Amino acid sequence: MTGLMRNIQPETEKIDLIMGQDLNAAIDNPLLGEVIKYAVFNGGKRIRPLLTVLSAGLEGRNSPDLYRLALTFEYLHAASLLHDDVIDHAEERRGRKVANKVWSNTHVILAGDFLHSHAMRLAGTVGGISCLQVICQAAAAMVESEFLQLQNAEKQETDEDYYFAVLRGKTAALIAAACESGAIFAGCTNAGREALALFGTNLGLAFQIIDDLLDYLGDGAKTGKAVGNDFQEGKMTLPLLYALRGDSSDSRELKKLLTTSAVDRSNYFTRARDIISMTGGFTAARRRAVTLIDEALAALNIFPESSAKDTLHALAYYVLERDK
Amino acid sequence: MTGLMRNIQPETEKIDLIMGQDLNAAIDNPLLGEVIKYAVFNGGKRIRPLLTVLSAGLEGRNSPDLYRLALTFEYLHAASLLHDDVIDHAEERRGRKVANKVWSNTHVILAGDFLHSHAMRLAGTVGGISCLQVICQAAAAMVESEFLQLQNAEKQETDEDYYFAVLRGKTAALIAAACESGAIFAGCTNAGREALALFGTNLGLAFQIIDDLLDYLGDGAKTGKAVGNDFQEGKMTLPLLYALRGDSSDSRELKKLLTTSAVDRSNYFTRARDIISMTGGFTAARRRAVTLIDEALAALNIFPESSAKDTLHALAYYVLERDK
Repeated sequence: MTGLMRNIQPETEKIDLIMGQDLNAAIDNPLLGEVIKYAVFNGGKRIRPLLTVLSAGLEGRNSPDLYRLALTFEYLHAASLLHDDVIDHAEERRGRKVANKVWSNTHVILAGDFLHSHAMRLAGTVGGISCLQVICQAAAAMVESEFLQLQNAEKQETDEDYYFAVLRGKTAALIAAACESGAIFAGCTNAGREALALFGTNLGLAFQIIDDLLDYLGDGAKTGKAVGNDFQEGKMTLPLLYALRGDSSDSRELKKLLTTSAVDRSNYFTRARDIISMTGGFTAARRRAVTLIDEALAALNIFPESSAKDTLHALAYYVLERDK
Repeated sequence: MTGLMRNIQPETEKIDLIMGQDLNAAIDNPLLGEVIKYAVFNGGKRIRPLLTVLSAGLEGRNSPDLYRLALTFEYLHAASLLHDDVIDHAEERRGRKVANKVWSNTHVILAGDFLHSHAMRLAGTVGGISCLQVICQAAAAMVESEFLQLQNAEKQETDEDYYFAVLRGKTAALIAAACESGAIFAGCTNAGREALALFGTNLGLAFQIIDDLLDYLGDGAKTGKAVGNDFQEGKMTLPLLYALRGDSSDSRELKKLLTTSAVDRSNYFTRARDIISMTGGFTAARRRAVTLIDEALAALNIFPESSAKDTLHALAYYVLERDK
């Protein structure tokens, strides 16, 4: 990871610098500026804009406009987090008060709307209509996936297809759009665009699967999140879905644990984790993530060797190996 | 008005038809479709898309794509009303339960986001980058104006410049963008674009001034709103601002009434209305609206005579003469 960090740090610093300039130029009202800067300068790793820059870098493209296009994805991500904060009634995000507790829901809904418009404007102006379409499709997919979850809130769908459909919209669509937009900016062929969209989709899916694994197997001190949350909430993540396949006595016991109350599930967490481990749920989920990353990297084979390609490889391995 | 209605009814019906088809094609999730259709099929008069169609009609342009571009403005308007409903904690809009009381804030925030993305996508795809820029600028101006109000919530600015700055963002920007986009679609010169942007801005401003007048002078049975709301809330609308100019005993009395509680202001409403009337506040505000409409119509002089132009004239006069 140290080598990777060394490669990406100058890029993330450049992204932050250009983002600050861009926001200063775009926003008139000082209070609006304050809310938006609170939302975007949050210690995030800038993964999405970084992917746009690296994707265009596969064709050797780099220019100030590329960074401005890349900002689009950080803005849309931040806009969706702002609206999520209102929706989730959360108190904190990344160890800081959520923006709607610092200001109000009104401020935060409107600031999200501003970021949304500004992102679309940048996308179209800098990236052209193709980029705009890719980005709007991703933004629409994010909402569709939230509605899939809203509709399913009672049904408790326990199906791998459903799990991946939600993940595609929730996490993968925007990451895929970030990569594909880099390809469009660099003037890639359709094959290049598709390769980078696939790379982004798989990277996003794998990232989320690892997240789900860390929720059972992670070290809370490193991840900053308590383990066992997903099981306590009865969330049907991939390790659990795999462990429930078949009709062994283990999977029957696990099914039973899932029907208890949240408090009971919290007490049964260690037992549930043991069952998932015994039935191979964790191994199968990790294998799925590895396959996704293998496919993601294979898609990059059509591009010549470059430092951008090396960094994308390193990022993909980091997604698999991260423990936080 | 009967002649005007006869002219625009086929257009609004066409807009509704194309809107239904467009939404069916754009939305996958049935629940999302339900929320969005509830929001857009609300008995609205389709003024914004109508203005796009009529503006392009000044150059004799008409095509199915024009109607799709026009939808953008109804979608953005609906998206902003959805988010407003969450912000305002209202119970009803146009005599129906607000969408977030039928479903939840979550549904409504997300549905607004979807409409927003979909509008931007349509704008760019059908209208091109220039339309997208005009629309995004209007969307940003709407948020900036809300923030102007948020910042002013304590200060109680009593200044005509502030009043018009808020109005420009809140109402006029989107209407101006609807007109200007029609001009862009029709391939107008810059002079044509500017003329239609001015027409839309002034129409929007005049519309809001008449709204403010109706809040004092309207017939609640026709407007569907109780008169006196603005005064009770201490809202500094144009008739009040004009009445407060100078330092007569009347204006001093009015100033005093404004410092009382909301309940007291409700009791003093008739007295306040009399003072505004005596000091010429209503006359001056109406004169301002008339001037704005005169300027709006003068801007259309550069276009040849056409039925679209006649309808735009009729619409502008309707804005001045409406009693509901």
